[in-house]
Amino acid sequence: MGSKIEGIFTPHVVPLDGRGRIDEAELRRYLDWLIGKGVHGLYPNGSTGEFTRFTADERRRIVQIACEVAKGRVPVLAGAAEANAAETIQACETYAGYGARAVAIVSPFYYRLSPDSVYAYFREIALNSPIDVTLYNIPMFASPIDVPTIRRLLELPRIVGIKDSSGDLAFVMRVIAVARAARPDFSVLSGWEAVLVPALIVGADGGTNASSGIVPELTRKVYDLTRAGRLEEAMRLQYKLLELFDTMLFSADFPEGFKAAVALRGFDLGAGRQPRTEGQRVDTAALQRVLQCILSEHGYVDAPSEGCPVRTGVPERDRVAQITQSVLDELRKRGAL
Amino acid sequence: MGSKIEGIFTPHVVPLDGRGRIDEAELRRYLDWLIGKGVHGLYPNGSTGEFTRFTADERRRIVQIACEVAKGRVPVLAGAAEANAAETIQACETYAGYGARAVAIVSPFYYRLSPDSVYAYFREIALNSPIDVTLYNIPMFASPIDVPTIRRLLELPRIVGIKDSSGDLAFVMRVIAVARAARPDFSVLSGWEAVLVPALIVGADGGTNASSGIVPELTRKVYDLTRAGRLEEAMRLQYKLLELFDTMLFSADFPEGFKAAVALRGFDLGAGRQPRTEGQRVDTAALQRVLQCILSEHGYVDAPSEGCPVRTGVPERDRVAQITQSVLDELRKRGAL
Amino acid sequence: MGSKIEGIFTPHVVPLDGRGRIDEAELRRYLDWLIGKGVHGLYPNGSTGEFTRFTADERRRIVQIACEVAKGRVPVLAGAAEANAAETIQACETYAGYGARAVAIVSPFYYRLSPDSVYAYFREIALNSPIDVTLYNIPMFASPIDVPTIRRLLELPRIVGIKDSSGDLAFVMRVIAVARAARPDFSVLSGWEAVLVPALIVGADGGTNASSGIVPELTRKVYDLTRAGRLEEAMRLQYKLLELFDTMLFSADFPEGFKAAVALRGFDLGAGRQPRTEGQRVDTAALQRVLQCILSEHGYVDAPSEGCPVRTGVPERDRVAQITQSVLDELRKRGAL
Amino acid sequence: MGSKIEGIFTPHVVPLDGRGRIDEAELRRYLDWLIGKGVHGLYPNGSTGEFTRFTADERRRIVQIACEVAKGRVPVLAGAAEANAAETIQACETYAGYGARAVAIVSPFYYRLSPDSVYAYFREIALNSPIDVTLYNIPMFASPIDVPTIRRLLELPRIVGIKDSSGDLAFVMRVIAVARAARPDFSVLSGWEAVLVPALIVGADGGTNASSGIVPELTRKVYDLTRAGRLEEAMRLQYKLLELFDTMLFSADFPEGFKAAVALRGFDLGAGRQPRTEGQRVDTAALQRVLQCILSEHGYVDAPSEGCPVRTGVPERDRVAQITQSVLDELRKRGAL
Repeated sequence: MGSKIEGIFTPHVVPLDGRGRIDEAELRRYLDWLIGKGVHGLYPNGSTGEFTRFTADERRRIVQIACEVAKGRVPVLAGAAEANAAETIQACETYAGYGARAVAIVSPFYYRLSPDSVYAYFREIALNSPIDVTLYNIPMFASPIDVPTIRRLLELPRIVGIKDSSGDLAFVMRVIAVARAARPDFSVLSGWEAVLVPALIVGADGGTNASSGIVPELTRKVYDLTRAGRLEEAMRLQYKLLELFDTMLFSADFPEGFKAAVALRGFDLGAGRQPRTEGQRVDTAALQRVLQCILSEHGYVDAPSEGCPVRTGVPERDRVAQITQSVLDELRKRGAL
Repeated sequence: MGSKIEGIFTPHVVPLDGRGRIDEAELRRYLDWLIGKGVHGLYPNGSTGEFTRFTADERRRIVQIACEVAKGRVPVLAGAAEANAAETIQACETYAGYGARAVAIVSPFYYRLSPDSVYAYFREIALNSPIDVTLYNIPMFASPIDVPTIRRLLELPRIVGIKDSSGDLAFVMRVIAVARAARPDFSVLSGWEAVLVPALIVGADGGTNASSGIVPELTRKVYDLTRAGRLEEAMRLQYKLLELFDTMLFSADFPEGFKAAVALRGFDLGAGRQPRTEGQRVDTAALQRVLQCILSEHGYVDAPSEGCPVRTGVPERDRVAQITQSVLDELRKRGAL
Repeated sequence: MGSKIEGIFTPHVVPLDGRGRIDEAELRRYLDWLIGKGVHGLYPNGSTGEFTRFTADERRRIVQIACEVAKGRVPVLAGAAEANAAETIQACETYAGYGARAVAIVSPFYYRLSPDSVYAYFREIALNSPIDVTLYNIPMFASPIDVPTIRRLLELPRIVGIKDSSGDLAFVMRVIAVARAARPDFSVLSGWEAVLVPALIVGADGGTNASSGIVPELTRKVYDLTRAGRLEEAMRLQYKLLELFDTMLFSADFPEGFKAAVALRGFDLGAGRQPRTEGQRVDTAALQRVLQCILSEHGYVDAPSEGCPVRTGVPERDRVAQITQSVLDELRKRGAL
Repeated sequence: MGSKIEGIFTPHVVPLDGRGRIDEAELRRYLDWLIGKGVHGLYPNGSTGEFTRFTADERRRIVQIACEVAKGRVPVLAGAAEANAAETIQACETYAGYGARAVAIVSPFYYRLSPDSVYAYFREIALNSPIDVTLYNIPMFASPIDVPTIRRLLELPRIVGIKDSSGDLAFVMRVIAVARAARPDFSVLSGWEAVLVPALIVGADGGTNASSGIVPELTRKVYDLTRAGRLEEAMRLQYKLLELFDTMLFSADFPEGFKAAVALRGFDLGAGRQPRTEGQRVDTAALQRVLQCILSEHGYVDAPSEGCPVRTGVPERDRVAQITQSVLDELRKRGAL
């Protein structure tokens, strides 16, 4: 077994070229930049990486590139979920060959499965994988992995950790309570950077945070400060991270907001595989202006040339709602409604 | 454009052989049997058909076989959802070549998308598909397709119908209200056989009902009686269909209960691709006894040799709950709890 | 025991005077009008009647007035839920004294209780009530009453029926399947007029429909046509009822849309007990114009003097969404967003 | 205005006598004990206090007693939600007269209201209350109070704080981010003791924690240690609090588990107003044994005479599930299932 998985892993996006294919050069440049900025590991084929929108062959290629770029500098946690357990096990074998540190397997999705089925699925994979496995719990998208199921799965040595993206800190604590007794080496990672500092304080070992693909410096600093016990400074940055996270999360269908922000850091992601309406394209442009203002405050990018509004602490979605409301009020006055 | 899509389409399961591969001979035998029993069409790669658990190549093969077996005797509605719009459009082209009548495209899943994104996705496909497209709304598993989105999509002539598996009859009515004005030829199919008769009465054109893969005779008869205005007889059978549907739906993770019932009709489905615990295998055996009793009442199969319990109208899940309760009560009396 | 409860019961609103007190004269005038228009019964203290916003004393007074106005012409089904079982039983006694036909008891709300607790609550009441009890299932607001619980409660002769406002027709069918075997006299009423005709067809005995407080003529006609087997005519009106219902349900917080419509029939309901913003008041005025147009088509009221837009079959909420969208699009073009 | 509301406020239960009436002597004894054990304030008529199960007169009496017992030793935060805004304002006036520090008003419940309606409701109360108001957000039971609504309400000086029982730490952080800028004196209290330490670390001012009614010593110590920056010790106790909280929360309908635990501390709560089945009574007895074992570990009560099982870190609900599973497995082997 390798060493415990800890620190900030980046669930990275995948740039596309003008024909909608993986832009391998840009992907390499992006991953290299992330490592240079200090993230502890790479996490290809996560939800942020839109793994469901790539073919099985493309998913393999993405992991291969991540492993090549990492070249042992940082560990790779490879998303390996495929159509079924047998296909997933094959991906595990492939990723072991590429040199990944471990795989991350999202719970079965589309069908909402019972705890027994979730258990049987992970058990089958853990018994046949040649590489360490981490569970990936994201109940808003996939069958939940509940605490009793995690407890049962702790008996399988191949399962070495869990990434939780539920956003429920008490759940993270319940997992830690169950895991620590049985498996001190078991890694618990939080995928919800809104509460990264609190997660580390209750005992999590790190995070797999989409924001670290946009502001690796900030995420890393939050991690380091918390580990160093400099809680006040950590919390000050945590609140800035929360504002950025909320803006990216709530302003567009996930993960479009995060992709809009990555582009601001100088990477060309292409058009994306999920078709968009003209209105959505305009929305994204508006969102980018807001994000640029936030990022420029941190000094990561220049402020937009047209300047930034005075910050009110009001999330952008509120501002849209306010404008909409004013317009509707005006229309009502004129009898148009 | 072809004629309006109507009648009972069977979202069929796919038998596997001992090595977990598609058992093509058994699949052909099963599909032929379904056509012989009177279903109006075949619907490969539906949710019942576990389309997400097959590879892209396998999904193509399944449709190919369905088209070959159908040989023009009945239309084929081919589930064509792939990893992204471009891959889906390619599948549409392939299925057009196989001679499918139309494709059914489930709304984007895993990510829960906004109405705008759902619209953009279907629009992109409809503008590029060489074959008629039906929308597939199944909000418990995929991004919902709401009524305003359907209204927008009605402008695309390639979109010729919708299959709704929400179980919400009022939603079906709203769709009919919106569609009928604009597109008299637009087909509305209900995927929720619990309310098949009511759906037909409010104006639906048919159903894509998993139960028709188990009791094609019964489903067809319910359809015919309703169409003939023999409502009382139809409703009597509808209640029997409801009991069967509920038993298959609630006794195991979908679609295991339906597969257990197909096996009773004499088809060997193999082990399935979703791993199961020992307890789940025993559960399935128990469920099959109950299903055999129900099916034997209709004369479709023999009663189990050990006989059937007096029917109480109580769904099986209740019976399990009752037994569990009695046991717990007993344990409590003995102080074990 | 009285005769089976069937037909259309109106869960009526309660007019308030300028000081926010019950306007007894207007309430009497309204209830008398309803009876004159043909509803089969009155249902004071339902959700439409905002029972939670009145004090215990006021709830008693409302039932008293309903019984006085009914004077035996139609039965009264009195909402009797109070703070706890003992208080509820006292209300049952009072309403028996007023001459109500039965009480309707909503499942415990605020806390979401387990089936066992829901059972214990209704059992306690049924064993102590001097008047027939109907269960009131409205899972969007109160603890759900599931089918196994209903089955257990069927053993209590005092419980004579259920009103279901889940909107789930399959649930209504499951209740009917369980109840009919054990208790042929058990009454099943649908509180979801979007599917009134289908509910009657599957075997429901009537409806407790808020719309019957606005268009008692229409609701009654839908009921009569269905009972007479004139399904086609019934369905044509059902679709009109659906449009009206949706407009009232989705255009404002329940039951404001229904109250806006009652006012159009000539009753002064006063300001309401739930405070409203200025924007909400303007919204209500806009909604009333739309409702007036719908009602004028049926000949129930005059068309608004400013005329009605061409009807597009598009629910009003969509129209608002469209206008909002156009405005936002325009703002975006101008760079304001 | 008074000083900022901070520290641990106990949402206390209300003992009943043999006839189901408030046991005033026992209530006084209990509240006095709580104050003696160090809680910072009393919170009558919270969800734990089952405010919906008492009459309006009883709710007033409960607050009166709390104020009398507190006698200025600790502040009283009085739950004041009544049937409507006018009734609630009257309660505010009464509680001001009793000497309460502030009132806590739960968001409108039963109906799920829009943000606009929630805003209008609290605005109406805040403009008319003679006593400081805290908002009470508990989205699992009542209309949610979202961040934009809180921002609007911050303009009303009478609103001095919020209690959040959503369990969502990121929500608490969003509220703090919005409130701190505008109103440094605004108090944010967490009602979810599963994450009490993290809540305090992100900036919450205290907690309204049901557990503090059972283990005031422990809750107070967690608070004091966190405030003193002794995070490691605080977290060790936080995990013990989590275990206790989960056991009380998930083992019975809320707040029965908490009441079972209060009884162990020597207070006679009587039978409760929500009727229970025989099975539920046995369940509660079993739960009390488990709770007694947990509490005895802390030295708060003696261990049960029959001894305690070896602790496995497994929540009790799991243990019940395990036993049920074994029993079902056994039954299956015997063919009974």
